[in-house]
Amino acid sequence: MNYYQQHQSEFVDGLKAFLRIPSISALTEHKPDIRRAADFALNELRAAGLTGELIEGDGNPLVYAEWLGAPGKPTVLFYGHYDVQPPDPLDEWKSPPFEPEIRGNDIFARGSCDDKGQVFIQIKAVHGLMKSTGKLPVNVKFLLEGEEETGGEHIERYVTTKPPRLKADAAIVCDTEMFAPDLPTICVGLRGLVYYELFVEGANHDLHSGVYGGAAPNPVMAIAEILCALKDRDGHIKIPGFYDRVIPPSQKERDAWARLPFDEKDYTINEMGARELVGEPEVGLFERVWARPTVEVHGIKGGFVGEGAKTVIPARATAKISTRLVADQRTAEAADQLRAAIKAACPKGVTAELKVLSAGEPSLTDPDNKYIVAAAEAMKQIFGKETVYIRSGGSIPIVGVFDRYLGIPSVLMGFGLPDDNLHAPNEKFHLPNLFRGIEAVACYLEILGK
Amino acid sequence: MNYYQQHQSEFVDGLKAFLRIPSISALTEHKPDIRRAADFALNELRAAGLTGELIEGDGNPLVYAEWLGAPGKPTVLFYGHYDVQPPDPLDEWKSPPFEPEIRGNDIFARGSCDDKGQVFIQIKAVHGLMKSTGKLPVNVKFLLEGEEETGGEHIERYVTTKPPRLKADAAIVCDTEMFAPDLPTICVGLRGLVYYELFVEGANHDLHSGVYGGAAPNPVMAIAEILCALKDRDGHIKIPGFYDRVIPPSQKERDAWARLPFDEKDYTINEMGARELVGEPEVGLFERVWARPTVEVHGIKGGFVGEGAKTVIPARATAKISTRLVADQRTAEAADQLRAAIKAACPKGVTAELKVLSAGEPSLTDPDNKYIVAAAEAMKQIFGKETVYIRSGGSIPIVGVFDRYLGIPSVLMGFGLPDDNLHAPNEKFHLPNLFRGIEAVACYLEILGK
Repeated sequence: MNYYQQHQSEFVDGLKAFLRIPSISALTEHKPDIRRAADFALNELRAAGLTGELIEGDGNPLVYAEWLGAPGKPTVLFYGHYDVQPPDPLDEWKSPPFEPEIRGNDIFARGSCDDKGQVFIQIKAVHGLMKSTGKLPVNVKFLLEGEEETGGEHIERYVTTKPPRLKADAAIVCDTEMFAPDLPTICVGLRGLVYYELFVEGANHDLHSGVYGGAAPNPVMAIAEILCALKDRDGHIKIPGFYDRVIPPSQKERDAWARLPFDEKDYTINEMGARELVGEPEVGLFERVWARPTVEVHGIKGGFVGEGAKTVIPARATAKISTRLVADQRTAEAADQLRAAIKAACPKGVTAELKVLSAGEPSLTDPDNKYIVAAAEAMKQIFGKETVYIRSGGSIPIVGVFDRYLGIPSVLMGFGLPDDNLHAPNEKFHLPNLFRGIEAVACYLEILGK
Repeated sequence: MNYYQQHQSEFVDGLKAFLRIPSISALTEHKPDIRRAADFALNELRAAGLTGELIEGDGNPLVYAEWLGAPGKPTVLFYGHYDVQPPDPLDEWKSPPFEPEIRGNDIFARGSCDDKGQVFIQIKAVHGLMKSTGKLPVNVKFLLEGEEETGGEHIERYVTTKPPRLKADAAIVCDTEMFAPDLPTICVGLRGLVYYELFVEGANHDLHSGVYGGAAPNPVMAIAEILCALKDRDGHIKIPGFYDRVIPPSQKERDAWARLPFDEKDYTINEMGARELVGEPEVGLFERVWARPTVEVHGIKGGFVGEGAKTVIPARATAKISTRLVADQRTAEAADQLRAAIKAACPKGVTAELKVLSAGEPSLTDPDNKYIVAAAEAMKQIFGKETVYIRSGGSIPIVGVFDRYLGIPSVLMGFGLPDDNLHAPNEKFHLPNLFRGIEAVACYLEILGK
């Protein structure tokens, strides 16, 4: 039994303490919890033998720590985030979101997979190497943020100033998932994301639908008309120019995707809990979710939604909307295209205003990069299977920022699973992946140090 | 100075006490207030010299009272409702909705016009005749309900049993508005209303829009697609067969409407607070709001609507929808047509369920009926102008029920004003109309008794 295997119950207890902090970045009332989570992470890094501090700024604090005792060796920059998504709808959780509960081989809590569990993997890998060997095989830096779930503006502003302390050879990002439970996976492409809020206004007050129905503009109906102008019933985006920059996957990549173990029925029914898959009928599933842009509505509200009946024509309605982007789309251009399409679709009698809440560029990495090759080898050793390369439909905007401002590639070693319920009730993390993840990251650092 | 002119401040104080009771029928937590309002109305009727009681049943109590001391004279049945709409959005009220405040010549409170102020007119007219003459010129019955704003099921069930105590020659309904501040008005047509809730479900839990966007069904988008299939951008309803039974207004009625004093710009900008009018471009405004059916969405919710960003594809979304109907449409048929249209429009991957919350038939009355002619004469005497006949786009389902089950016409003498903000923040009632309304109803009973 190695060091990591001996300390598994300690890892679980430590992670539980991290998960109990409701560090929800989207809700301002959780500001104190954000700070508690940052302090927690910093203390863990110090306990692992690194020196560090909180980097304050206009936003949630960044956690920075380093160990630079391996001159001549590469330097890796670990990235992760200590903030989490809001837990609602609360009544769909089987155990409270901030009281971690182990059921079977899984630990259930908001943030267990995204991303506290994976940040914990990074810290404990380093901690273990320090404890068992007294040093690290490479130079190590950590930069953890507390607003990934709301746009990551603080870290982005900080990294774009190119601070000397962030100089590194590669970033190691643990915030993605494995393709299947025992299949080591590296992600080489991410979608970008622009998140918007759409405000539509009709009359300046709610109107009686009997008295004015037939003459008054209805902002909820207007949002429906706008949404229907953006996408057809088959899932094709109708925004002019939107697909122009999309780079289709290579035939080699498509062939590799076709070899992935995959049961579409299981994915649809058991994983998604859906009846059937939708989206562009002429495009394959992996390409639809990994390599095609989307326009999605995340939430909508307007008018009376209480119990019973209220016959109003609402004065206003709002929707949360996003566009997911793929290489070589640009966030600013996509936002302009969407804004123009909304303007063109906005019906008579209402005004529509689109506000950008956050933006992150898409990214696509060369799988032959040596830091990626070493990561694939480390994962293969620990999991005992050949590592596969996939893309992710999700967005990790910092990857594009590291590329552009620090000039370094990001290695996306992820240990989540497809059924981990990210951003949804009953989020979980698979405990065997917590343990193997810690070992795989430690192994990776050892390979890089050779 | 007559009795009514002498007692104006007493009327205002009494109405204020009635308005302070938050008898919101749509919200179950206000059940005790519903009962307080029923008791209040019954006490007022007893104070006026009538005998009465609460009629209990499966719903909010009905208030019944009678005075039958005029044998050989007609019997009129006064109808009104003591329940009110919810007051939200609360932050748009200039004074609290249940703390009546007089500003200028208006009293501001939820229910001031719809319908407590107008119920108060009926009670005080009778009270005044009893006080000043010791008797009434006709036999009088009152039937007040406490769930008009949520569908009026209790009164409908009660009236359909044709209870002998409800035998009358005509119903007098004070729940409509005058066309203009000094223009006595009788309403001869009402739209019917079917109110629905639409439930759309996709996957059985919220999904991460990065991981699944491009493959997962989106219930908010599905509701948008369904709404757009029901109505085109010009306001034409696309539900198959929906217009088939619609009776167009006569040329005589259209001509009378064209003579009504009306400033479209003032109506649009000052009354509605809108930028421009919408709806079927080839149909005139009065016809659109009085004599054409509508499909309207009153509220919608789904997904994340909190502060900030959450990248979910929601599992479900709901909308409150209504169809307003005109003679000779039927509620059951319209609901069937809507259900079929929704089924046809429901996109792949989601289910749509439509639930009917309430239904009331449209009505159209002969303006030459003697009870209507007498009401027009009474209003002319008090207001000093010729009474005009209009229709209302609103719905008073009980009118259709009185017609069908009691075999009596309804006389719609309304004293509200177009800018009274019914169902909206800052609902008000014009005090001169309170006073003239009381006199006009008293005058009407005297004319009927001759």
